[in-house]
Amino acid sequence: MRALRLKDWKSEPVLEEVPRPEPGPGEVLVQVGAAGACHSDLHLMHEFEPGSLPWSPPFTLGHENAGWVHTLGEGVTGLEVGQAVAVVGAWGCGTCAHCLAGLETYCERPDLAPVPGGGGGLGMDGGMADYLLVPAARHLVPLPDGLEVVDAAPLTDAALTPYHAVRRSLGKLGPGTTAVVIGVGGLGHLGLQVLKAVTATRVIAVDGRDSARAQASALGADLVLEPGPDTAERIREATGGRGADVVLDFVGSDETLATAAAAMRQLGDLTIVGIAGGTLPVSFFGLPYETSVQTTYWGNRSELVEVLDLAARGLLHAATTIYPLEEAVSAYDALAHGRIDGRAVIVPNDTFTP
Amino acid sequence: MRALRLKDWKSEPVLEEVPRPEPGPGEVLVQVGAAGACHSDLHLMHEFEPGSLPWSPPFTLGHENAGWVHTLGEGVTGLEVGQAVAVVGAWGCGTCAHCLAGLETYCERPDLAPVPGGGGGLGMDGGMADYLLVPAARHLVPLPDGLEVVDAAPLTDAALTPYHAVRRSLGKLGPGTTAVVIGVGGLGHLGLQVLKAVTATRVIAVDGRDSARAQASALGADLVLEPGPDTAERIREATGGRGADVVLDFVGSDETLATAAAAMRQLGDLTIVGIAGGTLPVSFFGLPYETSVQTTYWGNRSELVEVLDLAARGLLHAATTIYPLEEAVSAYDALAHGRIDGRAVIVPNDTFTP
Amino acid sequence: MRALRLKDWKSEPVLEEVPRPEPGPGEVLVQVGAAGACHSDLHLMHEFEPGSLPWSPPFTLGHENAGWVHTLGEGVTGLEVGQAVAVVGAWGCGTCAHCLAGLETYCERPDLAPVPGGGGGLGMDGGMADYLLVPAARHLVPLPDGLEVVDAAPLTDAALTPYHAVRRSLGKLGPGTTAVVIGVGGLGHLGLQVLKAVTATRVIAVDGRDSARAQASALGADLVLEPGPDTAERIREATGGRGADVVLDFVGSDETLATAAAAMRQLGDLTIVGIAGGTLPVSFFGLPYETSVQTTYWGNRSELVEVLDLAARGLLHAATTIYPLEEAVSAYDALAHGRIDGRAVIVPNDTFTP
Amino acid sequence: MRALRLKDWKSEPVLEEVPRPEPGPGEVLVQVGAAGACHSDLHLMHEFEPGSLPWSPPFTLGHENAGWVHTLGEGVTGLEVGQAVAVVGAWGCGTCAHCLAGLETYCERPDLAPVPGGGGGLGMDGGMADYLLVPAARHLVPLPDGLEVVDAAPLTDAALTPYHAVRRSLGKLGPGTTAVVIGVGGLGHLGLQVLKAVTATRVIAVDGRDSARAQASALGADLVLEPGPDTAERIREATGGRGADVVLDFVGSDETLATAAAAMRQLGDLTIVGIAGGTLPVSFFGLPYETSVQTTYWGNRSELVEVLDLAARGLLHAATTIYPLEEAVSAYDALAHGRIDGRAVIVPNDTFTP
Repeated sequence: MRALRLKDWKSEPVLEEVPRPEPGPGEVLVQVGAAGACHSDLHLMHEFEPGSLPWSPPFTLGHENAGWVHTLGEGVTGLEVGQAVAVVGAWGCGTCAHCLAGLETYCERPDLAPVPGGGGGLGMDGGMADYLLVPAARHLVPLPDGLEVVDAAPLTDAALTPYHAVRRSLGKLGPGTTAVVIGVGGLGHLGLQVLKAVTATRVIAVDGRDSARAQASALGADLVLEPGPDTAERIREATGGRGADVVLDFVGSDETLATAAAAMRQLGDLTIVGIAGGTLPVSFFGLPYETSVQTTYWGNRSELVEVLDLAARGLLHAATTIYPLEEAVSAYDALAHGRIDGRAVIVPNDTFTP
Repeated sequence: MRALRLKDWKSEPVLEEVPRPEPGPGEVLVQVGAAGACHSDLHLMHEFEPGSLPWSPPFTLGHENAGWVHTLGEGVTGLEVGQAVAVVGAWGCGTCAHCLAGLETYCERPDLAPVPGGGGGLGMDGGMADYLLVPAARHLVPLPDGLEVVDAAPLTDAALTPYHAVRRSLGKLGPGTTAVVIGVGGLGHLGLQVLKAVTATRVIAVDGRDSARAQASALGADLVLEPGPDTAERIREATGGRGADVVLDFVGSDETLATAAAAMRQLGDLTIVGIAGGTLPVSFFGLPYETSVQTTYWGNRSELVEVLDLAARGLLHAATTIYPLEEAVSAYDALAHGRIDGRAVIVPNDTFTP
Repeated sequence: MRALRLKDWKSEPVLEEVPRPEPGPGEVLVQVGAAGACHSDLHLMHEFEPGSLPWSPPFTLGHENAGWVHTLGEGVTGLEVGQAVAVVGAWGCGTCAHCLAGLETYCERPDLAPVPGGGGGLGMDGGMADYLLVPAARHLVPLPDGLEVVDAAPLTDAALTPYHAVRRSLGKLGPGTTAVVIGVGGLGHLGLQVLKAVTATRVIAVDGRDSARAQASALGADLVLEPGPDTAERIREATGGRGADVVLDFVGSDETLATAAAAMRQLGDLTIVGIAGGTLPVSFFGLPYETSVQTTYWGNRSELVEVLDLAARGLLHAATTIYPLEEAVSAYDALAHGRIDGRAVIVPNDTFTP
Repeated sequence: MRALRLKDWKSEPVLEEVPRPEPGPGEVLVQVGAAGACHSDLHLMHEFEPGSLPWSPPFTLGHENAGWVHTLGEGVTGLEVGQAVAVVGAWGCGTCAHCLAGLETYCERPDLAPVPGGGGGLGMDGGMADYLLVPAARHLVPLPDGLEVVDAAPLTDAALTPYHAVRRSLGKLGPGTTAVVIGVGGLGHLGLQVLKAVTATRVIAVDGRDSARAQASALGADLVLEPGPDTAERIREATGGRGADVVLDFVGSDETLATAAAAMRQLGDLTIVGIAGGTLPVSFFGLPYETSVQTTYWGNRSELVEVLDLAARGLLHAATTIYPLEEAVSAYDALAHGRIDGRAVIVPNDTFTP
């Protein structure tokens, strides 16, 4: 089968032929219908020194995957061959307290996981190939009626991550509250849709790009701001002086974090999703009382079930550009040069072939 | 009546005669039975420049108060003359969303409060006097059977503050979890008791003083540590490598915050209670995933009701040293020189006199 | 001023002249802009024997009220004369634990309330008059921009009641769940809008009337059913066999309760809002495991704030028919004979007159 | 190996030799150290007609099991041979939403479970044998230090069931609240210990037996009542008229449910745990407002982890009487005739033998 392989750190991926894997007990072979190309893959190709991560090349890229169940390993129940599925990306040990509660992103025994702190496309073979070997059936979520494989793939990361961030703050997002989305990009534009779908909070979107602000307005943002020195002040004005109940910072730079902190309401949530590498100094009098500051990382299976339900009902949609697998390299090139609208999705197979 | 007045910034308080106030509509005059002397009063006396706070002297000291209802203002119901009461210390506007939800510490219209961001003993006349004028009946909590006025007074701050901090983290304090108390002083030794009373979490106490560690052991701490460069590592070892689910930092210095951050478990709560002025730099990879960092400030009325219930049942007790009102100045002097065991409590009146 | 008085049990109300009340300390006089006419008023007029309720006529009708602040009693802050306000209808003692937590519907010291278990229009003078005396400023909620007095009045009961019922079940109403609304009448059609506004649950509406089902479809119900012997079975089919996560029964008869019970999912909420007087026998094997059965009654101030926010933003709207105060008697007559579409709203004053 | 087999409905179990099972992929063979004898086993032996349950004899009895990992099936990780483990008793499909959330008691695809609605000792071979085949590693919880196998076994049902019931009501069990335990038997005396360990609620225990009331007092009940016509009234008196926040009915008869209903506080939880077969009629005015009535059934893995933690720390202890496997039949006989103090525990093996 074909596979887009990252063969070494600081190298470009290569499309080559590899043997098709066979699923062992409990495993499932998925015929890949779509695999999202993510900015973080560019980081993987270009930025890491050997030894800086707990895993290393070679492996097949692709950590946002959907397709069809092709072969069931021994003992797998609850799935049928040919069934369309999305793949939960974070593969934990499956036995620690967090994994047993479904929180494999926060696995506490990474030494027992298939790969520590990773998954398919992150240290193990991912979905930019004709087939993907999934190490446990629990990582597969059947697609609900009305949702196509090609639409589902990017949601497994770009929608799941903001969904997890929103869900943990639901108690602070009732009517009369205000949420701020900083950065209306791949994740942010889905975060905005999530907020609109599952809450009645007001949404303020902040982005420096005209096109992103236009998209935010089209998606129903109640107020759209261009970032500047007075952003926090304008958020405070728009909230009767109270400030934002929840800020989701999809950028995560020093500047955006400082803006977020200045815009918060007492008892609010300031959640860092973006990995621009910024730092926020937190002290007793530096933020409004009892504002919580935290990161969030990806999401879990039950949350992906909910994301797919929203998408099947038309409440969430990721804009995508489609590439066949042979053009995956040029897709990454276009991504690296900012020439892609929405999410680039690689399509190894158009339909299921038993 | 007698009152211990702070007459100016950067001055010592003075005991003098002042007129006894008369309660207006909705107000209540309390005959003071006990008023705690707090370290923060020493800050008030010695450290603030004029204009640095939204209120200023002269006023009577004492923000941890209990006594007996003496005179009811017009329209007050639900209280009886002679009834023993504790005083909720944070006096908000009573009309904003937070105040109407009982969260007067986080009042959002301080301009409408009796004094912005303060209360009795904090910008307004407090309890180190024969009588205290309380501006609204809702600030009074009748003492449950079995709790004396002199024991209740220090609980209104030194127990209420840690109680609020614990209560907001209850969901992370089930069996199998670990809480760390940094600083087993006036608030910390009550925080430890609160954890033992309302949860089944394991408690690790950290303090540099031998006497504080002995007290922590006596109060049931499961592990007591002397702070050092390996404190976080020892907490991690004691928790099977997972780290602390909740850290309550009653010190709040750079060092204690750094220790707390290094000791956290993913999804934990790092709560800053102490005001030693430290700063914790928060970034995406600087803390375990989804650890929340926040301050908390004092507590609200419904929480004080719960604190008093615990105390009446013997589950919470503040060690105290008693002084008559005439010796209040020397009590503060002893407090400033570290010569007081437990909480210094000033007793203006031993019993209710109609 | 004019007032529509219920002068005795089992009598028709009479419009007559009464003295305009003067607000005492803490009270507020509201000039009434709108008062909803509720079916429960018909019960009040026609069905109660003397002594069956803890209060009795004479009093002015009208428990769904909105208007403008006319005169502030001594000590009232946070409100301005001329300000448009909605009135929270349940007037508790204001001093018990439930009242201090904002839950005056569930006041635990009704003997200390203005009237036990009632409020304006329910044992005390209500809003079908030129002016309404409100016994405490906390019962008033300023209207947000964009919401008219005449639209706000019916929301204080007909929307607040379903909002409270939905809010307590929010944790069971995530994406992928199903809520069932039984009875799409005055409260039910607003309950359906609330579900659509604040959750992403699927909504199934059940009503025997063609017009109600058409309205449910227009309001976005995902499935609309005519009640019949197979209703529960059809709900189960529509939910993949799982059943309904939440059923809000706005009727409350033996039949609707039996249908609800048969349609429930394990761990669901079956909430009885309607007072048709039905009974559901609950036993260990009679309902799916851990289905909770409960009533709910009206709602509280903070919930009304949220309801008004939703309405101001166009997410909630009560259909109304307007009558001047002189025609209030004929409005009730039309209501009794089923000749009113939507909520009948009595308008004593069109605008504020200082 | 030896096994105590129920060979047919309405028969006595027989101890006989059967082949030792071999674990397949994902399965684990446990050498049994202890298996609790439960009253519900007596029901199984004597009361069911063929076809009334979705499974049938022959099978080995014993659904409260603990022992040592003996043989790991292919692909099992996270466990070690010789490790002491408790067995989670409810074995669901492992693939439905409830199972993936760890709620196998409420499995929604029982057709895909090893046995529908059952587990080891309930339709499948249980733990009254030398070895127990566990169909998935996730059903095993390693014992914490300080907890013996023989003490752990009965906790997997008799403590887990009340723990689940308490845990779902934790939000209603803060200081100042009151919980009522009706029936201080096998489950009830552990429920009382759970309440004392994880909350600061007051506990009222109700039981008709002198010995049970003495046990309740010894375990720290704040008030102990003999049931009678005035039980609800006495509960109300003991709570200042408010009533009980939570009632756990471990009996579940018409009488106890009626008492519970009459004793409830508004917004309380009335939870039916016992299966005496009673019925409570629920109607709008029949219970205090918003009291929730529900059943609960057994508990899940994460809750068992917490139960075992409490037991290892001495906060939970089940009184037991020990029998070797050869005397299991006489143990059931003693159980049937009420001659056993505490829980009867069958011990097939005293120690692990590789």
